[in-house]
Amino acid sequence: MENVKRLMGELEARGVDALVSTKNVRYLAGTSAASAVVISRGKNTLICPRLEFDRAKRESFFKDVRAFSQYRVAKRKGENLFFGEPWQLIGQLLKQMKARKVGLDGVKADLLGKLKRVHRASYLDMSKLVAEMRKVKSDLEIELIRASARLAVKGMQRAAELIEEGRTELEIAAEAEYVMRKNGSEGVPFATIVASGKNSSLPHATASKKRLRGRELIIVDLGAVYKGYASDMTRTFAIKPTPKQLKLIEIVKQSQNAALQMVREGARAAEIDKAARGVIGESGLESFYLHNTGHGVGLDIHEPPYLSPKSKDLLREGMVITVEPGVYVPRVGGARWEDLIVVKSEGYLTLTKF
Amino acid sequence: MENVKRLMGELEARGVDALVSTKNVRYLAGTSAASAVVISRGKNTLICPRLEFDRAKRESFFKDVRAFSQYRVAKRKGENLFFGEPWQLIGQLLKQMKARKVGLDGVKADLLGKLKRVHRASYLDMSKLVAEMRKVKSDLEIELIRASARLAVKGMQRAAELIEEGRTELEIAAEAEYVMRKNGSEGVPFATIVASGKNSSLPHATASKKRLRGRELIIVDLGAVYKGYASDMTRTFAIKPTPKQLKLIEIVKQSQNAALQMVREGARAAEIDKAARGVIGESGLESFYLHNTGHGVGLDIHEPPYLSPKSKDLLREGMVITVEPGVYVPRVGGARWEDLIVVKSEGYLTLTKF
Repeated sequence: MENVKRLMGELEARGVDALVSTKNVRYLAGTSAASAVVISRGKNTLICPRLEFDRAKRESFFKDVRAFSQYRVAKRKGENLFFGEPWQLIGQLLKQMKARKVGLDGVKADLLGKLKRVHRASYLDMSKLVAEMRKVKSDLEIELIRASARLAVKGMQRAAELIEEGRTELEIAAEAEYVMRKNGSEGVPFATIVASGKNSSLPHATASKKRLRGRELIIVDLGAVYKGYASDMTRTFAIKPTPKQLKLIEIVKQSQNAALQMVREGARAAEIDKAARGVIGESGLESFYLHNTGHGVGLDIHEPPYLSPKSKDLLREGMVITVEPGVYVPRVGGARWEDLIVVKSEGYLTLTKF
Repeated sequence: MENVKRLMGELEARGVDALVSTKNVRYLAGTSAASAVVISRGKNTLICPRLEFDRAKRESFFKDVRAFSQYRVAKRKGENLFFGEPWQLIGQLLKQMKARKVGLDGVKADLLGKLKRVHRASYLDMSKLVAEMRKVKSDLEIELIRASARLAVKGMQRAAELIEEGRTELEIAAEAEYVMRKNGSEGVPFATIVASGKNSSLPHATASKKRLRGRELIIVDLGAVYKGYASDMTRTFAIKPTPKQLKLIEIVKQSQNAALQMVREGARAAEIDKAARGVIGESGLESFYLHNTGHGVGLDIHEPPYLSPKSKDLLREGMVITVEPGVYVPRVGGARWEDLIVVKSEGYLTLTKF
């Protein structure tokens, strides 16, 4: 509810009568059952397919829930049902509220074209406004991400127990996901990565039937989902490692540490990336650092802000980000070390202690 | 490779020089590592973020793989790396091949605007062409969906073993997903639904901490993923059911049967929906049938064709669809029965026998 209130304030400040969002329905209405929300100063409406009506009613705090069906059917008692396409229903709502200035969030070109035919107004893209809001998490959102991170740590503990010669990557991924799910995770925000040996030098390898062997690095990258909120963490394990392999793990840990020491309100995201990159560069491995240093995490597993050389973001208290340097060296292996943290005024709080 | 060949034939027939797809990369190039593909008569190019370069090379049969990085970095040996945005790279490619007529598949308005600035051509939306192609599966695709369905059946078997008073919905979902994952599923195409008692009357309830009790219906709806291809099936169980509850299960099975008997090459999707709906209507429960009778399944869990009253589709041999009537009656419970089938010239083949 807090998110909608913040948004309504922003709309009022901009003289916008209503905002139609197809992109941030869960963020604004607290349910994944809906197709769109219409936020206005007076009233907030949630629009969903017919089969989701009862679930939307149950999950969302929105009182005005309207379902659509593209064909005529017998109505049930208590059903607020519109026969037609969702854009016709949205257009009708805008007409009823005589909205002149309408903000759009994630609305695609063809939907907009149809809306314009039902209701004339001045439409303006406001996707950036909601994206900007989402960068800084509310206290409630941080609690949900924290719960999600706790589940991820449970998964990582299980993976750690199973790291030994002879086990398959897939087996370890399946066990880790099982523990998270059993403890209440709604699923995984991405397929758990268990990447050993050669596979470890692919940043996004998934888990295969390959068995773990000695002289290998093993990257485990996983996350959970709690009430829609994702988590994300990575550890690198080793079985009878060579000195070169141990060195890679040392480097990514040092790199992460250099980055973390700079995290606080007001720090430049690009500078944090630079610090992480610098440590790897000093070891002569710069060309094997294949990705950014981190990203925001929330309802999406990858969302702004990004810790990259080109980022313009300044960190703000309440941002939830990963810090995850990695190096991927052919014939040696890959190593990545990733934690999920909350930015605080004078530093940060780690959500994925392990 | 077959999919690309079919597409190239279609492009040639329409005098299109090149097609840019951001939507059907996996369908066309066989990897999830890429951001876009450019298909032309002479050459096919895959475009991916830098960190995915090695994986794209490994997974795809495309020989021309190009990575992009939004910032300058030290290159690794063997890396085909472009510094800039993906649209700049795509624009450059189109320029080099002097493409005059360029098809677009899933390319968003803002990307198109940028492309036009790099390379002048006549751009036309061809999203429908690829969507249409995808409705009918190749023999290879059917094999992959069959493997995915086998995993789903394993999950359902496990769920069936666990249906008993006192267990939680979540526990059953976690166990079913674990069995599928351990046997090679890459994940789930949607969070497994285990919906008991009151929850069973919500078509898209997920799995909660609620315990199963007597006098309840329990809907289990699940699927697996194999090499990107989804599967989907539903069974309804009952613990010490009331006669009314048993009746609901009977009705959806009869409804499914009526629909299945009409499935064959040339049958109208809308007629099949009508047959399923008719059986439910005869029982006076029409207003509790809250959704369509079925949908296509492939790389997406829901894709065309749809078995709905408004569908214009005729079934064709090689389509893979679900048939899944359901009724959801407050204070009694919900029942749904869903199988995944392949349309054949004279009937169908069930992939989810259980």
